[in-house]
Amino acid sequence: MARLITFTSDFGSKDSYTGVVKGVILSIAPDAKIVDISHDVEPWNVAAAAWIITCAYKYFPEGTIHIVVVDPAVGSDQRRILLYNDRECFIGPDNGIFSLVMAEQAEWNAVELNKKEYWLPYVSHTFHTRDIFGPVAAHIANGVEPHRLGSPIEIESLAKLADHQLECEDGKIKGSVIHVDRFGNLISNIPNDKVKTGGRCYLKGKYVADIRGTYSSVETGKPVAFRASHGFLEIAIHKGRASEILNAAVGTSVRLEGL
Amino acid sequence: MARLITFTSDFGSKDSYTGVVKGVILSIAPDAKIVDISHDVEPWNVAAAAWIITCAYKYFPEGTIHIVVVDPAVGSDQRRILLYNDRECFIGPDNGIFSLVMAEQAEWNAVELNKKEYWLPYVSHTFHTRDIFGPVAAHIANGVEPHRLGSPIEIESLAKLADHQLECEDGKIKGSVIHVDRFGNLISNIPNDKVKTGGRCYLKGKYVADIRGTYSSVETGKPVAFRASHGFLEIAIHKGRASEILNAAVGTSVRLEGL
Amino acid sequence: MARLITFTSDFGSKDSYTGVVKGVILSIAPDAKIVDISHDVEPWNVAAAAWIITCAYKYFPEGTIHIVVVDPAVGSDQRRILLYNDRECFIGPDNGIFSLVMAEQAEWNAVELNKKEYWLPYVSHTFHTRDIFGPVAAHIANGVEPHRLGSPIEIESLAKLADHQLECEDGKIKGSVIHVDRFGNLISNIPNDKVKTGGRCYLKGKYVADIRGTYSSVETGKPVAFRASHGFLEIAIHKGRASEILNAAVGTSVRLEGL
Repeated sequence: MARLITFTSDFGSKDSYTGVVKGVILSIAPDAKIVDISHDVEPWNVAAAAWIITCAYKYFPEGTIHIVVVDPAVGSDQRRILLYNDRECFIGPDNGIFSLVMAEQAEWNAVELNKKEYWLPYVSHTFHTRDIFGPVAAHIANGVEPHRLGSPIEIESLAKLADHQLECEDGKIKGSVIHVDRFGNLISNIPNDKVKTGGRCYLKGKYVADIRGTYSSVETGKPVAFRASHGFLEIAIHKGRASEILNAAVGTSVRLEGL
Repeated sequence: MARLITFTSDFGSKDSYTGVVKGVILSIAPDAKIVDISHDVEPWNVAAAAWIITCAYKYFPEGTIHIVVVDPAVGSDQRRILLYNDRECFIGPDNGIFSLVMAEQAEWNAVELNKKEYWLPYVSHTFHTRDIFGPVAAHIANGVEPHRLGSPIEIESLAKLADHQLECEDGKIKGSVIHVDRFGNLISNIPNDKVKTGGRCYLKGKYVADIRGTYSSVETGKPVAFRASHGFLEIAIHKGRASEILNAAVGTSVRLEGL
Repeated sequence: MARLITFTSDFGSKDSYTGVVKGVILSIAPDAKIVDISHDVEPWNVAAAAWIITCAYKYFPEGTIHIVVVDPAVGSDQRRILLYNDRECFIGPDNGIFSLVMAEQAEWNAVELNKKEYWLPYVSHTFHTRDIFGPVAAHIANGVEPHRLGSPIEIESLAKLADHQLECEDGKIKGSVIHVDRFGNLISNIPNDKVKTGGRCYLKGKYVADIRGTYSSVETGKPVAFRASHGFLEIAIHKGRASEILNAAVGTSVRLEGL
């Protein structure tokens, strides 16, 4: 059966970068099936990529290989990693990009990618996705076992995103906006299971809306805070752009009270 | 043979939404082949999506399954439908998005999608494409017959787009711009077979150009109105952006005279 | 084995154009695997497309078919060509779009596409990618030999891009920016093998940076000129947008001295 490889990056769509990586993968693993998640992650925004892959990976079948690259430090001595368990694996830089994925499951193994026989023969300083991550994904698709691709590393040593820490106290949570989607909806880093309906949602200290279990029908132009289908608290405006109307962006503080 | 599934939406490319739907489809139907038509339909613009799928569906092979979703009323009690005939099928909300497709052929069957055994186990209020439309498309790709996926509904009861009505009188037609393409070309809702060369084209009441059968070579910067390759009258500027130069947008009135 | 077809154009992502071409290809060659390189080439910028395909083609496996279309003169009497050698083939307009690819290899054959039995039955004046290029690519994927698709033409007669000419004199080269990528990096038309480290790089006559062999770690906000992974001299700003900070764009002159 053809193995699935997903691909998420901040490479955009106007250059040859994503096409080149696909060419490399299909040269090594002609039967692999590549699915783009997004290449329009905000440039250098590791937190946004962390959120996007967390929303997506669980909907892919067992055995899927996920390449996730937003890498402002490419070319430095930052490690390149393969993170895996029985169900799936993730390939990318060790810069916290897998923080949210790792928080959702207990069992992980990781290797530092350092077996050059599974890379392109020449490795550039700026395009590791083409030279290392793509080839590694293709070799896994061909059946190479993950542990053969590098040296084992301690899960505790992996980088974590500082700004994904939540402050929780009795009945209150403080988090932040980690992504603004195409419709201007504000997605927070507060998981649905920490949210109770009936509570109140504040943006930058200002009351916005009561929290609902679902996107209930509010009037056009009115704000709503709800446990969204992607698994995190979302603040939206019915048929409007919350980011503009509520003057919020990535990093804006989100406070919930009365939980 | 692998079944083809096309996917058209206003989900954009910066979020995980389209990737998630593909993960769901490929989890149920691993051999399906998914082709994106566009995910950059203007948000909430049902008419633009209706036009895009009308241009595209006829170029796909028999048996293709088309998912088309621009759904400002998601979460309301609006019906979700499967529209089908011997050649192909369409899946999406019952909000007029298939108006133009239906106008092109006589024979249609439709069911309201209400058989939950073909959906994801948990259905959200905001992401029916992931929870319902994607799974339904995948089950059809696996060979489930369309009539098993819902309860039959009358074709006459399906929603239609009001603004796709043309006003025709002797030698004249009044329509409107329904889409501005990447090049700034203005695409009208007037089908080629209602257009005669030699007529005159007016935008917002102002004469723009004579109608030609084809995109004849006009000078750089000059306007041309012609029967375009997608099947509708188009107004363009040679090597220029008609939308800016002629100050027109979706909704701008188009009048043809002297037909 | 399924044949690979890559697809590069300035068609953008908001219309039905790329989806339609894929439908045509898959109707003729259901097993073909289509990979998008980019459809966000700047409209009508033939030089940018020439650069993008040059970066990409060499990473695809033997036998890959490349469709590359930026075609401001579509509908004129400009030739439509198939360029091929033992390893791969290219399909597109004869407007210089393959200039850079041709400069990299010695052995080429070319035919003018004029065998209508391999096209769609009806050929429009504005959408040759759908009516001619896509069908021709699909027939090659099905095994039709390139020489059957048209009449042989002299390689020397093919159009070349004037602005890809470099001015080289002793220790100096003058070229220009041919592409600004998503990150604002400036890509020149000067191939890496003409560049020596230790030289100096000037933009619009103004000194910018010394030339390095690689993207060495410079401080945040500082410019760097280096032999980039795509094969051409690139000018970048560490974690910044060189196009904005250095006020440069496609066409800006690039001069190297001290080579």
